[in-house]
Amino acid sequence: MSQCSTLYPTSLTLQTSTFPSKRLVSHRESRQRCLTVSATTLSPNQGIQSQSSSGFDHKDTEPSRPKRVMIIGGDGYCGWATALHLSKQNYEVAIVDSLVRRLFDHQLGLESLTPISSIHNRVRRWKSLTDKTIELFVGDICDFEFLSETFKSFEPDSVVHFGEQRSAPYSMIDRSRAVFTQNNNVIGTLNVLFAIKEYREDCHLVKLGTMGEYGTPNIDIEEGYITINHNGRTDTLPYPKQGSSFYHLSKVHDSNNIAFTCKAWGIRATDLNQGVVYGVTTDETEMHEELCNRFDYDGVFGTALNRFCVQAAVGHPLTVYGKGGQTRGYLDIRDTVQCVELAIANPAQPGEFRVFNQFTEQFSVNELASLVTKVGKKLGLDVKTTSVPNPRVEAEEHYYNAKHTKLVELGLKPHLLSDSLLDSVLNNAIRFKDRVDTKQIMPSVSWKKIGVKPKTVSAYSNN
Amino acid sequence: MSQCSTLYPTSLTLQTSTFPSKRLVSHRESRQRCLTVSATTLSPNQGIQSQSSSGFDHKDTEPSRPKRVMIIGGDGYCGWATALHLSKQNYEVAIVDSLVRRLFDHQLGLESLTPISSIHNRVRRWKSLTDKTIELFVGDICDFEFLSETFKSFEPDSVVHFGEQRSAPYSMIDRSRAVFTQNNNVIGTLNVLFAIKEYREDCHLVKLGTMGEYGTPNIDIEEGYITINHNGRTDTLPYPKQGSSFYHLSKVHDSNNIAFTCKAWGIRATDLNQGVVYGVTTDETEMHEELCNRFDYDGVFGTALNRFCVQAAVGHPLTVYGKGGQTRGYLDIRDTVQCVELAIANPAQPGEFRVFNQFTEQFSVNELASLVTKVGKKLGLDVKTTSVPNPRVEAEEHYYNAKHTKLVELGLKPHLLSDSLLDSVLNNAIRFKDRVDTKQIMPSVSWKKIGVKPKTVSAYSNN
Repeated sequence: MSQCSTLYPTSLTLQTSTFPSKRLVSHRESRQRCLTVSATTLSPNQGIQSQSSSGFDHKDTEPSRPKRVMIIGGDGYCGWATALHLSKQNYEVAIVDSLVRRLFDHQLGLESLTPISSIHNRVRRWKSLTDKTIELFVGDICDFEFLSETFKSFEPDSVVHFGEQRSAPYSMIDRSRAVFTQNNNVIGTLNVLFAIKEYREDCHLVKLGTMGEYGTPNIDIEEGYITINHNGRTDTLPYPKQGSSFYHLSKVHDSNNIAFTCKAWGIRATDLNQGVVYGVTTDETEMHEELCNRFDYDGVFGTALNRFCVQAAVGHPLTVYGKGGQTRGYLDIRDTVQCVELAIANPAQPGEFRVFNQFTEQFSVNELASLVTKVGKKLGLDVKTTSVPNPRVEAEEHYYNAKHTKLVELGLKPHLLSDSLLDSVLNNAIRFKDRVDTKQIMPSVSWKKIGVKPKTVSAYSNN
Repeated sequence: MSQCSTLYPTSLTLQTSTFPSKRLVSHRESRQRCLTVSATTLSPNQGIQSQSSSGFDHKDTEPSRPKRVMIIGGDGYCGWATALHLSKQNYEVAIVDSLVRRLFDHQLGLESLTPISSIHNRVRRWKSLTDKTIELFVGDICDFEFLSETFKSFEPDSVVHFGEQRSAPYSMIDRSRAVFTQNNNVIGTLNVLFAIKEYREDCHLVKLGTMGEYGTPNIDIEEGYITINHNGRTDTLPYPKQGSSFYHLSKVHDSNNIAFTCKAWGIRATDLNQGVVYGVTTDETEMHEELCNRFDYDGVFGTALNRFCVQAAVGHPLTVYGKGGQTRGYLDIRDTVQCVELAIANPAQPGEFRVFNQFTEQFSVNELASLVTKVGKKLGLDVKTTSVPNPRVEAEEHYYNAKHTKLVELGLKPHLLSDSLLDSVLNNAIRFKDRVDTKQIMPSVSWKKIGVKPKTVSAYSNN
């Protein structure tokens, strides 16, 4: 990180730290750039590549120009990996992010397993490795004035919206976090919809939803809509939703709001109801340590499979919540970036509200624990499993069969969970195991105990 | 209004006007009261009555105490009528209201057809007529500190929540009103749920939803839930929602949030999906001119039948939006107060999220126009109808069959729309026709033209 820091334009860093939520920081304007590449971390297939690219418009007679993709929340786990992937594919990419996710870590005393660079160093490193520019706008999309400026400046053809508070436990810490989550997510998305209507009416919104919007109904889960025969009549209606945290509910609200604006204003939108994401690297994040993605293993932001791998690495029993029969859809982060690219390359029609279920395989928590135990054994780890009281309110044994064919029809080639993949995630956890804070492992947020008083870090660790 | 104003405790009025959103104003503490009754406005069956009352708890051996009902939004059209009705039925009633609805009138240059007294005069007049106290808490439920104090002070057994921005056109004026509506309604309701959980976990929430949450599906509308057979399996799931304005969507969001808290926290809740309310008086509001209810006829807050009556009274053509085939459920305001009382008297179980469709009859807009034309003719009015371009995005010809049996099963005796009722609403409009501002009649808010800039009154009248 430090080997080329003196070459960075100082004024840029000053701008962002002084006006984090108001000032636009555009790398277009930055003339000085760090071109030093740390060769030891580059593998032969990395660096600038010429390859068949989907990031171009191919209109009849006009010369093609790169499609412009704005990635809101582009500093996060899925957002960062997606930004790099699309930039690599020759899309013009801008990241819009308030960086508040990093603040949450500070406030809760959490830290990514992997060491992550600042977003400023990340995009500079990417430029130095690939000569591709990722524009950066630091600010809050709930501030409509800021969001307007990003739209007017960048003129996106697609907006990929990862910019929401995305943790169910976070939304259940206390009243103020519950209210923050719904306000931040719902109003942020409303602002994006208004910005598209006002400034870029043909822009395609690709919004990250969650499979958790559906809950666990006793019938098959379809992709967004269900055809219902009732009392001799038939209609195809939005699939009934049953969110099970204030976070999941915020995405249900978003879906309903977006559907309305597609109908009323002709917005084109794709709702990606994503499953639980696992994994740590993509081709692009592997290119340099400064491009390394975050990896959460704590009880608030960590998700099931990633958490289990870290637990196995440090010799902590795998924490199965309740009976462990909770079944969900899962996908590799390399498939997240692939799915988003497919959605962008095949946009929804004007007025269309399209819903894809974005996952590749279903697992129960017990099945994941068994897989990690088996692969851990091969690596010489003695993996135990423990059942802990379920901090959530959810069915622990239930029917689950969710459809997920639409992205496959568009060309998704899934990376299924294999021993070798688990191997690499586990090995990554072992590599960084000295960074693990075991106090973060156990669940600290209870769905039933949430109260009205703000909960601080110290209240937390005593939970 | 003025004949007894010198008897009012001055300190009370000062408190509310100086600290409108922070200070609690409790009539419990008010010792001086105006007991003067204007006899000319009292009919024989009015005033203090001893009657069989449902406002008491009848527990086995304990002495019964009146049930305590908090009415959020108790200064509004439905809220005020409900507060008086429940107080008359010997419930202990408190009104919680920020009075922001009166501010909207000022900001948009609108006024109720009927002259309405301040909430302070209203509750004092009620006390003087009936010797019944309605407590008053002036403040915003989005301010959780304020809401907490009302709960601790009043200790409600039921909360009736009318306290939301309730106009679809208002929510479609501009971006800031859209955001205000969703933020205000969703966060206010979240706060109520947290207050119940924290301070009164057995308290029954009676929440005003809207039939508009369902949209106009091509199948029968059920009461909150639908049993779906799908691929050989069956489940009963929340009825799919299709809100058609940011207001309607805010109530969809509320319903989803409430359902979750019933499941996760054991909240007992009843969602009253109300149809379009018409009418002007209830037994209680008729008792004195200072108890008179508001009556909106403008393009923002006025609803179909009420607006048509005012239009007929002033010789303005009835404004049918588009084809006029839009069919909805309607009910008399006397049935609103009856339904709320039935819901309170028969509370939901702990953990139950109960949904009632609260209307008595279905009409299309064209049917309402015909009825008003016919009854107007009898009163010597020459009523014309004009089709205006539909400012909304909605189906103008559609199937509509919504169930509404649950409140009837609990004992609702509907006041159906008859010539004599229409007669009385029309006569009321004729009585106050000199107060009509005809500039307020035409629709001024377009679903498609909503923009990001704040819209002021002057922008409005030129629309």
